[in-house]
Parts: sequence; C-alpha cells; structure tokens
Amino acid sequence: MPRAASGAAVWGQPDERSMDPDGGWGAALAHHFARKLDVVNRGFGGYNSRWGLKLLEQVLQQVAASGQQVALMTLWFGANDGAIPGRSAERQHVPAAEYAQNLAAMVAMARAAGISRIVLLTPPPVGDDARVRHQQKRMGITTAVLPDRTLEYAQQYAAAVRDTAQQLSLPVVDLFAQLQQEPGWRDSLFDDGLHFTPAGSRKVWQLLRGVLGQAYPELSLESMSNQFPWWDKWDAADPEAFWEEALPQLQATAQRQQRTQKKEEKKQG
Amino acid sequence: MPRAASGAAVWGQPDERSMDPDGGWGAALAHHFARKLDVVNRGFGGYNSRWGLKLLEQVLQQVAASGQQVALMTLWFGANDGAIPGRSAERQHVPAAEYAQNLAAMVAMARAAGISRIVLLTPPPVGDDARVRHQQKRMGITTAVLPDRTLEYAQQYAAAVRDTAQQLSLPVVDLFAQLQQEPGWRDSLFDDGLHFTPAGSRKVWQLLRGVLGQAYPELSLESMSNQFPWWDKWDAADPEAFWEEALPQLQATAQRQQRTQKKEEKKQG
Repeated sequence: MPRAASGAAVWGQPDERSMDPDGGWGAALAHHFARKLDVVNRGFGGYNSRWGLKLLEQVLQQVAASGQQVALMTLWFGANDGAIPGRSAERQHVPAAEYAQNLAAMVAMARAAGISRIVLLTPPPVGDDARVRHQQKRMGITTAVLPDRTLEYAQQYAAAVRDTAQQLSLPVVDLFAQLQQEPGWRDSLFDDGLHFTPAGSRKVWQLLRGVLGQAYPELSLESMSNQFPWWDKWDAADPEAFWEEALPQLQATAQRQQRTQKKEEKKQG
Repeated sequence: MPRAASGAAVWGQPDERSMDPDGGWGAALAHHFARKLDVVNRGFGGYNSRWGLKLLEQVLQQVAASGQQVALMTLWFGANDGAIPGRSAERQHVPAAEYAQNLAAMVAMARAAGISRIVLLTPPPVGDDARVRHQQKRMGITTAVLPDRTLEYAQQYAAAVRDTAQQLSLPVVDLFAQLQQEPGWRDSLFDDGLHFTPAGSRKVWQLLRGVLGQAYPELSLESMSNQFPWWDKWDAADPEAFWEEALPQLQATAQRQQRTQKKEEKKQG
C-alpha cells in the first residue's frame, strides 16, 4: 500500500524538549519530512549511554515488530555521561572511554537491525556559571558549589563522538564546536547551561539539516516521493476515476521503494 | 516488549503546519504525549473530505500493518470543503451535506478499524478581508475580488461537524465558535484569513487539550504508564541488576495494556 516507506528515529537523551512546539528540533525534523517520513521520538531525558544501551535493544525490537524501515537515525548521548564524578550529578556519569564504546555498540546494534543512515551528535558545550546558578537555585543555597558539568570536562566526550564517527564512517554534527561559535551562546542558546532555549534548539536543527544534506543527499525532499498525491493533482470533476488510476501507481511505487531499500540494506548489512 | 502500546493520529487537511516547530499543535500533541504515545501526522494540505475519504482506507491499512493500536484520532476537515462555488478555490468545494456524510463515513471506517477515541474539530472561522488580500496578492492584482471562503459560508460546515459529533457521540473542538471569542482573532490567529499563525496554532492545542481532558480522562498523563523507567529510577551502582529486574515487569505491563485495549475495542467494536 502507499506509505511513507520508512521513518526517522530520534534516539538519545533529550526527550523533554525535542518535540517542543517552541522551536524543538525533533518537531522541525517531523515538519521537514512531512508526507515523506514519520519521525519517532525515542529520546529519554536524563539518560546516559550505559542505560540507553540497555533500552536500545527493546526499541529496535519495537521497530522491527512494526515492519517500519528506519531511513535515518539520530544518535545523541553524552550530556549526562559527562556529569563530573564527585559532584551533584555523579549518578549519571559514565567515563569517556566507556561512552565511546557504548556509542559504537549502539551503532552496531542499529546496523544489525538494518539501519544504515545514522547521524551522531556531540554533546553541546556547557555554560559552567549557569550550571552553578541552577544547582544553587535547586538546592536553595547561595554558597559556592562546583558545577555538575563543565565545558572543559565535556571536551573529551565531544572528542569521543568525533573519533567514533570517523572510525565508523558516520557523519557527525559537532554541536560542541559549532555552538560555541555563536556570539553569546551561553545565554542565548541555553537556559541553564545545559538545556536548549528555543533559539538553541533551532540552531541544532539548522546544523543537523546541513549535515543531512551533505551526508545523505538521497534524503533530500526532491529525491523522496510524497505520501499520496498533492491536493491540486486531484481531478475535481471526476475524483473516482482519478483515484482508480492513481492508487495502483502509488502501490507500485511503494513496493518498488521497499524492494530498493531492502536491497540497499542487504548490501550494507 | 515494553512500548508505548499505541499511537495518536492526526488526520485531516492541515499538514503543512501541524508539526511546525513554531507553535504547531501536532508538535504540541507529540510533546505532550512524549514517552506515552507516538503521534503520527497524517495531515494532507489542501484536501477536502471527498478526497480524504479515499485516502483514509489506505492510511488505516498502513496502521493495521504496523500492528500499532491507535489510542486517539483527531479528525479535521472542512476549511477546503467550504471553498465557495464559482470563486477562485471552487475545485476544493464539497457541499455541506456531503461533507457531513463524509465525516460520518470516516468515523465509521476508523471505528471498524478499532479506533474508538476520536475528536472532531470544526473548521476555523474565516477572515474575509484577509482572504481578499491574499487572492489579490497571489494574482498580482489590486482590483476587487470576491473572497474564496467567507465566515458566513463556513458557518454551515461548523454546524455540520457539531451535528455529526452529537449523532455519533463524539467530542468536538468548536474552533469556529471559540476562536472568534479571541480579541482581534482575524489578525492575531491567522496570517491569510485561513492558515494559523503560531499563536493560532497554540490556541488550537489549548482548546484540543481541554476537550481531551474532559472526553478521555483515561488519556491523562497520570493515567498512562511511561515508556521505560525515568532516568532517576536506575540503580547507578548496579544497572545490570536493575535492568534484569525491571525488564520483565515492563514486558508484563505492556502485555497487560495490550490485552486491556483489545478487550475494550471488542466491547466497543
């Protein structure tokens, strides 16, 4: 039957805000791919890559059970792995070396499940002072505290993503480096040194979109067929005849796309 | 396996903007139900209920093939059906009586496919003058034109939705009546007398949310289980043991939910 033959999955830690109707980058992805791909949000706030690795097996089983083919997966962890040991968020900490291994293991699992187009995102840069203020506010204190995450500490996690992406021949959105190039990024892009403002989330989408265009030109809107005809294609005088002719064509196109995709997956698998 | 046992589907004419990361009400729905339900956008811009009825059979087949159970469906046509015959958008016109029949037929098809929770939305009110300006701009003229849609003409379509909802015992979001209560609605909620501004789309979500809460309290966030544990439930010291214990419970919960839903559907089907 005619369908958006496949979906895009958003996988990683930032569930709370990715579909936010105030600039959310997951919503932007869904808006961008409307009538082309369904976007499935599998973001889990607060998760690190160690816990995420456990979940991914289940998530991939869900996808397999639905018969959907995943055309694209974004993979984004690290903001929580990079919580500093001995400070207030240490429960979330995962060492950078293990973090890199977890990312590679997730990619291997996704590839084994037939997902070939994956984009890695580095953790974003950290606003150290804003983290301090956030912790003080949460704890109701004004005395000095050490930030639970820092820009300096996050560096090694960003580097781990870059290395992993290179080793696995995958594209990477280097949020860590690129967001720091925005003037006043600490206040304009983040609201507590860690979570994005609407402007920050829009910037994430802008950077992701650029990487997608370069790495996966076959996912350009021009390259993908639409789900069902545009409204102005309908023969208003005789919609019955139009649909009788259009439907078998749509079904044939959908079947052809599925065959092509399966072949591609076999080649890459 | 643990899953958001079901999804919510957005079905109707307004695809272009519902997932818009600038206030889109579909994005708001997805954000609201994150970790509870997946939101699938099946909006088709420019469609009327006559063309939409043809598509719905295919869309429901897709859903059935995916094994997903639809927990909620929004049903929204009419802004195009209400294009006035003999004017510039007449191709999209469908008489109000047929429109009402089409809506009822769609509800019957959805119910036959096991979808019991449906919300109807009336077409929004029309800004006549803005329609005139929009048409003049598109045609590059400054001479007088008659608006392709009008507030007065849209009335009968809104009435048809109210009647259909009552006959079929379904909740309705009366956008036609309620949006007109907003001061300055013509300019603040619409950008061309027909399509929503971000503020308009936010208002749609606010009204839809209110109706959902009243009609389907079982879809309140408190009533639905989360997909996978919150991050702070994990035993950071021993994630292996935590997961070994949590996973079978999650699986049992998911199976129980699916059985309950299937029973409900049989009862209502």
